[in-house]
Amino acid sequence: MVKDGDRVLLYGEDGSKFIVRVVAGAKKSTHLGLIEFDNLVGKRFGDTISIGKTGKTFYILPPTYVDDIFSMKRKTQIVYPKDSSYIIMKLDVKPGSRVIDTGIGSGAMCAAMARLVGETGKVYAYERREEFLKLARANLTEWGLVDRVEFVLKDISLGFDHTDVDALLLDVPDPENYVRQCWEALKGGGILGVICPTTNQVSAVLEKIYELPFVDVEVWESLMRQYKPVPARLRPVDRMVAHTTYMIFARRVNAKFSSEQTGTLESSEIDALNVEEV
Amino acid sequence: MVKDGDRVLLYGEDGSKFIVRVVAGAKKSTHLGLIEFDNLVGKRFGDTISIGKTGKTFYILPPTYVDDIFSMKRKTQIVYPKDSSYIIMKLDVKPGSRVIDTGIGSGAMCAAMARLVGETGKVYAYERREEFLKLARANLTEWGLVDRVEFVLKDISLGFDHTDVDALLLDVPDPENYVRQCWEALKGGGILGVICPTTNQVSAVLEKIYELPFVDVEVWESLMRQYKPVPARLRPVDRMVAHTTYMIFARRVNAKFSSEQTGTLESSEIDALNVEEV
Amino acid sequence: MVKDGDRVLLYGEDGSKFIVRVVAGAKKSTHLGLIEFDNLVGKRFGDTISIGKTGKTFYILPPTYVDDIFSMKRKTQIVYPKDSSYIIMKLDVKPGSRVIDTGIGSGAMCAAMARLVGETGKVYAYERREEFLKLARANLTEWGLVDRVEFVLKDISLGFDHTDVDALLLDVPDPENYVRQCWEALKGGGILGVICPTTNQVSAVLEKIYELPFVDVEVWESLMRQYKPVPARLRPVDRMVAHTTYMIFARRVNAKFSSEQTGTLESSEIDALNVEEV
Amino acid sequence: MVKDGDRVLLYGEDGSKFIVRVVAGAKKSTHLGLIEFDNLVGKRFGDTISIGKTGKTFYILPPTYVDDIFSMKRKTQIVYPKDSSYIIMKLDVKPGSRVIDTGIGSGAMCAAMARLVGETGKVYAYERREEFLKLARANLTEWGLVDRVEFVLKDISLGFDHTDVDALLLDVPDPENYVRQCWEALKGGGILGVICPTTNQVSAVLEKIYELPFVDVEVWESLMRQYKPVPARLRPVDRMVAHTTYMIFARRVNAKFSSEQTGTLESSEIDALNVEEV
Repeated sequence: MVKDGDRVLLYGEDGSKFIVRVVAGAKKSTHLGLIEFDNLVGKRFGDTISIGKTGKTFYILPPTYVDDIFSMKRKTQIVYPKDSSYIIMKLDVKPGSRVIDTGIGSGAMCAAMARLVGETGKVYAYERREEFLKLARANLTEWGLVDRVEFVLKDISLGFDHTDVDALLLDVPDPENYVRQCWEALKGGGILGVICPTTNQVSAVLEKIYELPFVDVEVWESLMRQYKPVPARLRPVDRMVAHTTYMIFARRVNAKFSSEQTGTLESSEIDALNVEEV
Repeated sequence: MVKDGDRVLLYGEDGSKFIVRVVAGAKKSTHLGLIEFDNLVGKRFGDTISIGKTGKTFYILPPTYVDDIFSMKRKTQIVYPKDSSYIIMKLDVKPGSRVIDTGIGSGAMCAAMARLVGETGKVYAYERREEFLKLARANLTEWGLVDRVEFVLKDISLGFDHTDVDALLLDVPDPENYVRQCWEALKGGGILGVICPTTNQVSAVLEKIYELPFVDVEVWESLMRQYKPVPARLRPVDRMVAHTTYMIFARRVNAKFSSEQTGTLESSEIDALNVEEV
Repeated sequence: MVKDGDRVLLYGEDGSKFIVRVVAGAKKSTHLGLIEFDNLVGKRFGDTISIGKTGKTFYILPPTYVDDIFSMKRKTQIVYPKDSSYIIMKLDVKPGSRVIDTGIGSGAMCAAMARLVGETGKVYAYERREEFLKLARANLTEWGLVDRVEFVLKDISLGFDHTDVDALLLDVPDPENYVRQCWEALKGGGILGVICPTTNQVSAVLEKIYELPFVDVEVWESLMRQYKPVPARLRPVDRMVAHTTYMIFARRVNAKFSSEQTGTLESSEIDALNVEEV
Repeated sequence: MVKDGDRVLLYGEDGSKFIVRVVAGAKKSTHLGLIEFDNLVGKRFGDTISIGKTGKTFYILPPTYVDDIFSMKRKTQIVYPKDSSYIIMKLDVKPGSRVIDTGIGSGAMCAAMARLVGETGKVYAYERREEFLKLARANLTEWGLVDRVEFVLKDISLGFDHTDVDALLLDVPDPENYVRQCWEALKGGGILGVICPTTNQVSAVLEKIYELPFVDVEVWESLMRQYKPVPARLRPVDRMVAHTTYMIFARRVNAKFSSEQTGTLESSEIDALNVEEV
């Protein structure tokens, strides 16, 4: 049942999507027409509602994380779901995890982590620009996740205040300058993730990673292709996102016993993911 | 600190990975040589250990979800991390979610969901072949997730016992035959995910979806490309996974107000993900 | 030296491209401003010219095939260079080849073939809509290739007039209906290429191919990704073409000695292209 | 009709491919069994032949360029058809073209060009290692293309002997060191193509290109994906080639009128290929 205070997604059959927060008794004038919230209250999710004079019909749906981040107020480029979903899995974020996110931008990645760490985990959200921190805090408050996040306004070149974290995502314009600080914040076996849009940055970050005790270094990129969902004429859409970012992952160890860079992928790239249980 | 009962990942600099469960006081003979567990107990994660006569050195790391599924006992094709991570995000699985997974195979997807639903959510795991259900239960027990999962040995053509679930993942050889049962199990606004390796199945499932009250139908495929992590000679690896599965997503509504199929992607495919906040 | 009658590409530093045919002594009013052709005559390719009142500078370049097809008058979707280049190689078009192109649309593919067959080969261009045939003939005349092409206005369901051709490209809305006619037109060992935008068509065409004596059946798709050519910030562009067409190839034999469909790719897909010299 | 001296492709239904040159009256012992050439002579292409004691049946097909390069004697990595086909089109190689290929390796790219330039064009094949030049010459002789190629044994750091060429393909380990020599060899409006496997090389080559009068600079990579050709279970193969090379293209002009690097792709990347006819 939709009730006062709920956030709901209004989905039109033309694919349009709008998110509103229900305020019982109130009305809201939108470019769609006047929304009378009392027409929403008491409806079940999955029902429809007509809005405005034209009576355009919308389905009432619960907003998902993906809906939320594409509707949020943002001042920065966000990490796309195709990448953030993979990053969260590679960083092994789960209930109870203690993780660092920096820079937090508009809070999309921070939210993805906060959803998963649950009540027992924590996201430490570092940002040096106060306006972004305020925006991210507002977005996380809107999504009901703010209690799981500790915000820190700080220039990370000075290091992180939190240590022994399970994972750390580095998403700043000059990531190659903060790899040491990341190493210091991670626990032994903790996982570093770095977001880099250019190949030059990937090379620069890798160089720094190899100067420090990190192992299991991987670089990935994702291409997600959507199809026109027409059963009798199934085919991909005409255009797709060609690039968002490269993703670098590495695991922090306490010391390196050899100075060797990883060369493992040369011979075993396809099967690199096979792990043997002994 | 590594202690009795811990599962640890042993990572060699050649990229080899092995998972063992520590049994204090015991020894285990492996093809790597003899592992004396007391040499592991008390080490910190991120430290190293030498194993066997050759003294090959391994880093001691906590196994991640990705490590776990690539090392687990399996009798079936697993859903790859590139897909399972995206599916979990599109199904909006989060702490507190009640979700159905079917068929569960060896339990990899079930585990991914169980990690995220936390203590307050639940995964209902349907499987009609008893041997798979036993294997999945064993794997989830090994990973400490079994309490979050309710196993159901059942032919889903008879319908699901659980209703009003937030999301449902359908991963069976003939998914087109169970779309109605999925609709019945989902709550209003709940999300269906379907895994199909062939284009013919995608068409067949889409046809069934359009016969029922579902909206926001999407079909995706993912291509993940790995790079050789060499800073001075950065380039993708030589071979990659070309295909695992197509992924279909749709949201259950209570009734359709028009009989129109979705055609929204024709005009707006690139920007389909934009949601407006009103 | 640019001379009367030459076609030249005017390339602006902002990436704009325009093709004009030089008419000595004449002027042409364009949206760029007035082009006085006598300012072009006598220049070398690679020189610059200023046009119009604003004096915008353009480089004078010889138009390539790719320039030509993107500038030509067209009434249909063209085959993109990423596909046409691969098709021509797989069809083994070369000087002296006798090939059929159908339907010819605006003539882009026909032109690609005509360039390669040289003076000693021939392209037989079948089209059943007179307006397209006229357009294609006009385009091929403009490009100086018309002598290498024999146009045939015909419904190909009646069969082709030419036989024993080395290769045949089938690019019509319902290719599954003409596979037999293609077989009849090809020489023993000749190569069939089929263009299909949807997966349903690929399946339908493959079914027809397996009913006839064809071997070495392959299905391909191409993804070309462009990079921003900035040395210090190298990265792919933001958007790319996600799909144009699937490409089917098969070789005509005289009779099949077994009724087996091809299953060869199951075990050897990566190395399928290795051919042994004995 | 197959006759003495013909090269034929023997194609087995399991997908195996072998190329032999027919020597009338002779026999050849192969691992397939004894081939008696008189059983081939007089057959038509598209017929079958049984070989050896087991009587394995092969279809008799004319070898294509793609067959040839995958069967040739080689000492180097070859340029794959997915790339060479696109390169040839972007370099606008056609009957009558005068083009330079360097380094020629085993001659695959040289052969692709030689096929297309016809009797009236010429390929100038530069190579500094005599053993490669001999191998390439042998391969081109085998394919009947040697008359269209002029071989030059030379270190290209000394410059090319041929000038005013229509196109030049640079495929050497350190391409960034020869961009000036390429500029000097190309005619005004001539097209440079460069093959680079690593991102670092792409950046290095682009830097050199921007120091010289080149325009219309593009960087591309190709991903070709093959499908299992099974109509009722259509799907991509499991593995694919993830990377072979990046391809850089640029057009030589006589002088640059501004020092601006190209930034055109930022705003117009998808539509970059549109050329206007005025």
